[in-house]
Amino acid sequence: MAERLTAEARRQALGGIPGWTDIQGRDAIGKTFVFKDFNEAFGFMTRAALVAEKMDHHPEWRNVYKTVEVMLSTHDAGGVTRLDIELATAMNAIAKVTSS
Amino acid sequence: MAERLTAEARRQALGGIPGWTDIQGRDAIGKTFVFKDFNEAFGFMTRAALVAEKMDHHPEWRNVYKTVEVMLSTHDAGGVTRLDIELATAMNAIAKVTSS
Repeated sequence: MAERLTAEARRQALGGIPGWTDIQGRDAIGKTFVFKDFNEAFGFMTRAALVAEKMDHHPEWRNVYKTVEVMLSTHDAGGVTRLDIELATAMNAIAKVTSS
Repeated sequence: MAERLTAEARRQALGGIPGWTDIQGRDAIGKTFVFKDFNEAFGFMTRAALVAEKMDHHPEWRNVYKTVEVMLSTHDAGGVTRLDIELATAMNAIAKVTSS
């Protein structure tokens, strides 16, 4: 099972994934992605969903038209693990190629 | 442009779409869909997204694993219109065939 990252490991990991920050009041990381329109936003979500399902590690996310707010945490570990960093990294890569 | 439904028209419309209720504090309607797993939940979202895009009327929604919370409102009209009722009706139909 993935273990909670230490504060230092987490700080370092966040440094490598632009836009992701600690979420206040929760042991989680988050990012708000803003796309051109709903087509791009949901395209991003679809690609991210396939990655998440394959990892068996799923996001908590909210979509309003062109905006996707993502929150990642590992329930079993009670905090942020390497799984969250991996999914966040994948999401950044997907957003990069999704945005026109 | 779609116009805000009267209180009576809205009450009647909600009677025809099981599970949808007024959202407290907002001029909107909402429903929480619970599926078997993420595959079903995101399958539902994907089908609903296609309908929403075709209608050019989009939901505000939040997904956590097998749960999808949906909030519908028509921004231009400042409240609930027939567009929201139509999308809610379509979502109920999609959820029915998506759930195993």
